[in-house]
Amino acid sequence: MIPVEPLTAGSFEPFGRVIEADPATAVEINAGFTTRFHALATADTGDGAAILSIFRGRPRPLAVAMLECHPLGSQAFMPLGGRDWLVVVAETPGAQACRAFHCRGDQGVQYARGVWHHPLLVLDTPQDFLVVDRAGDGDNLQEVFFDEVPISLPR
Amino acid sequence: MIPVEPLTAGSFEPFGRVIEADPATAVEINAGFTTRFHALATADTGDGAAILSIFRGRPRPLAVAMLECHPLGSQAFMPLGGRDWLVVVAETPGAQACRAFHCRGDQGVQYARGVWHHPLLVLDTPQDFLVVDRAGDGDNLQEVFFDEVPISLPR
Repeated sequence: MIPVEPLTAGSFEPFGRVIEADPATAVEINAGFTTRFHALATADTGDGAAILSIFRGRPRPLAVAMLECHPLGSQAFMPLGGRDWLVVVAETPGAQACRAFHCRGDQGVQYARGVWHHPLLVLDTPQDFLVVDRAGDGDNLQEVFFDEVPISLPR
Repeated sequence: MIPVEPLTAGSFEPFGRVIEADPATAVEINAGFTTRFHALATADTGDGAAILSIFRGRPRPLAVAMLECHPLGSQAFMPLGGRDWLVVVAETPGAQACRAFHCRGDQGVQYARGVWHHPLLVLDTPQDFLVVDRAGDGDNLQEVFFDEVPISLPR
């Protein structure tokens, strides 16, 4: 069983950045009508380009039997429906190292280049995400497969 | 008065890209549990980096008395609250050329590099946006000011 931890900037630091309205980053702009939470993440796309896509995630069994990583660039996910979702990451590829994070609907993440992670995990209903990742030459996908391990949601 | 037009990829083409779940871009990924609407926009950051920020916009008078542009990079806005919002852009800096677009809550935009636009315009309530723009050396902000022109919302 993989227990689910709350997502915080500190706990997620080995894997990348949390994208949330962190007051420490706030700057007032636009004659005071906008607060800019500045540079919460920087896209790392090497010799490629940073592209913006929408991912429409549908519910799937909450279990982990594979991980993937993108060796050539970072990948950021920001929920557009304001609903909670899950992230599974690992410092080494395999079931043993998996950590699961419960993300609030106002929290996104950016996986650093090469970080092993599970594909998008929404909870009860479909949700769209804005995704910022890399386009360019080269093979930017690696995958590992293993025996299925369930994710244990907190009660 | 600046009338408000519906936002479409075609009408917005002189100014940049509309970020929405365009079926023409759809690819099924993640064992069929995710639809990727691919490469809806490409960040144009020249010698700079693409950064992700959150902008928290608050309601302001629906009138235009200035425009700004970013000569060194593109700037994308994606609403995170699912609520409608407005965009004002112009092919030349000044009140006469202004065009206003009504964006649905599931539509974002990316202003192309150098496109004149008004700062963030939310409607009745505050809304957060994910913003992808440029960080780097150089002066990436130009502004023009002029006599105020009201925006005319459709009835």
